[in-house]
Amino acid sequence: MSKPSPKHLATGDITTLAFDADDTLWHNETIFRLTEERFAELLREDMDSELLIERLLSTERRNLRFYGYGIKGFTLSMIETALEVTEGRASAKLISEILAAGREMLTHPVETLPGVRATLEALGEHFRVIVITKGDLFDQERKLAESGLGELFNAVEIVSEKTDETYHRCFSQHGTGVEQGVMIGNSLKSDVLPALRAGAWGVHIPYHITWAMEKAEVPTDYPRFLTLPDISELPKQLGL
Amino acid sequence: MSKPSPKHLATGDITTLAFDADDTLWHNETIFRLTEERFAELLREDMDSELLIERLLSTERRNLRFYGYGIKGFTLSMIETALEVTEGRASAKLISEILAAGREMLTHPVETLPGVRATLEALGEHFRVIVITKGDLFDQERKLAESGLGELFNAVEIVSEKTDETYHRCFSQHGTGVEQGVMIGNSLKSDVLPALRAGAWGVHIPYHITWAMEKAEVPTDYPRFLTLPDISELPKQLGL
Repeated sequence: MSKPSPKHLATGDITTLAFDADDTLWHNETIFRLTEERFAELLREDMDSELLIERLLSTERRNLRFYGYGIKGFTLSMIETALEVTEGRASAKLISEILAAGREMLTHPVETLPGVRATLEALGEHFRVIVITKGDLFDQERKLAESGLGELFNAVEIVSEKTDETYHRCFSQHGTGVEQGVMIGNSLKSDVLPALRAGAWGVHIPYHITWAMEKAEVPTDYPRFLTLPDISELPKQLGL
Repeated sequence: MSKPSPKHLATGDITTLAFDADDTLWHNETIFRLTEERFAELLREDMDSELLIERLLSTERRNLRFYGYGIKGFTLSMIETALEVTEGRASAKLISEILAAGREMLTHPVETLPGVRATLEALGEHFRVIVITKGDLFDQERKLAESGLGELFNAVEIVSEKTDETYHRCFSQHGTGVEQGVMIGNSLKSDVLPALRAGAWGVHIPYHITWAMEKAEVPTDYPRFLTLPDISELPKQLGL
C-alpha cells in the first residue's frame, strides 16, 4: 500500500536543501526550444519541422554516450542531423548558421526564475543550500556566475549524470546524510526519483516545458515526494 | 635572489599528492596531434598543413571563452576552421568526416603512461592521492573509468580552469592545506605555476609534446619546484 504524500515536509530532521539549476533556478529549456525552431527553419525545405525535431532528438539520444549533456554536444548533434536529412547536400552556409546558433546559446543571458533569489536568501538562514546540476562543467559555471546566485550556495556540484549514488554522495559530503536532505528540481527523472530512491525528500517544481529525455511518471509510492507549483512555496513548506 | 631548486622534496610535511591526468597519467596530446594531421589531410587541397593547424589554433583560442577545454569544443573549432579556409565551399562530406574524427577521439582507448599504476599504488600507502584535471567533465570521467585507476584516488576534481585558487581549494578540501600538498603534472602553465604560487610543491614531469596553449617558461624563483623525467622517480623523491 502506498502512503499518501504529506502536506508538509517533516522539517525537524531536514538540514540540507539541494537545488537543480536548469529550469529550476533559471530558464534553460526555452533556449533549446527556440534554437530547435531556428534549426527547423534553416531546414524547412528539406524536412517538416516536427519530423526534423524528432530526428534531432534521436541523434541526441544516440550521441548521449559520446557527448553527455550540454550545448556543445547539442550543436554537434544539430550538425549531424542536418548532414543526414540533406543527404550530402548541406551547404557550408547551413553548417555555419548552426555553429552560430550553438554559440549564441552559450552566450545567452541567464534569466533566473521568479522568486528564486528571495527564496534562496530566506532558506539560507536556516539550512545548508547546495546546487546539484548535470551538464557541461564550463557552461554551468558560466551560468552560475552570470546568475549572481553563487554566493547563496554552500556548495555547487556539477555532475555528468544524476543517479541515486550522486545524491548519497552529495548529501553526505555537503550535508548530514541523504535522510536529512531535500532535492528540489523540475525533472522527475533526474532530480526527484533518484533522490527519493536514495532516501532523501524529493520536491518537484514543474517547468512549463520538459525535454523529452527527462520525462517520467509521477511517483506514487514515496511518502517523501511533494509537488509545488512555485519555488516561493518552499519556505512555508519548510516551516518558515 | 632566487634559491636553487632542492634535490629532494621536504617530505616531512607532505600529506597530499595531486596529479594532473591528461599527459601525466595517460596519453592525450598525441590523440589531438593525430586528429590535427587527419584534419590537415582532409583540407590539403585548400591550405598548407602547417598554416591550417595555425588557423585551427587561433580558432581554438578565440573559442576558448565559449567552449572551454575538451574534444567537443575542439571538434566545433575544426568545423569552423574548415568553413573559413574553404570560403563557403566546404562539402557535407568534409564536415561529416570532421564529426567522425571528433567522435573517434571521444572513444579512443585510454593508454596509461609507463609506471603510472605501480607509482600510484606505492604512493597511496603513504599519502592522500588525488586527481586535479581540467576539461570536459563527461570525457574526463570516461577516461578515468577506462584507465582503471579510479580506485587509487582519494578524490577526483574535474575543474574548468586551473588557477591558484583551484589549488588552494583542492588541497584544503582533500588534504591538509596547500602548504602540505604537491601538484604533479606535465603542464608548467596549468599544473606547476599556479600550484607554486598557491604555496604548494610543484613537480613538472614533461610529456614529449606540449599543446601550444600550455607552453610556459620554466620557473626559476620557486624553491618548491622540481622537474622529474618520469613518474616512477616520485616515490624515491618522496623518501620511499
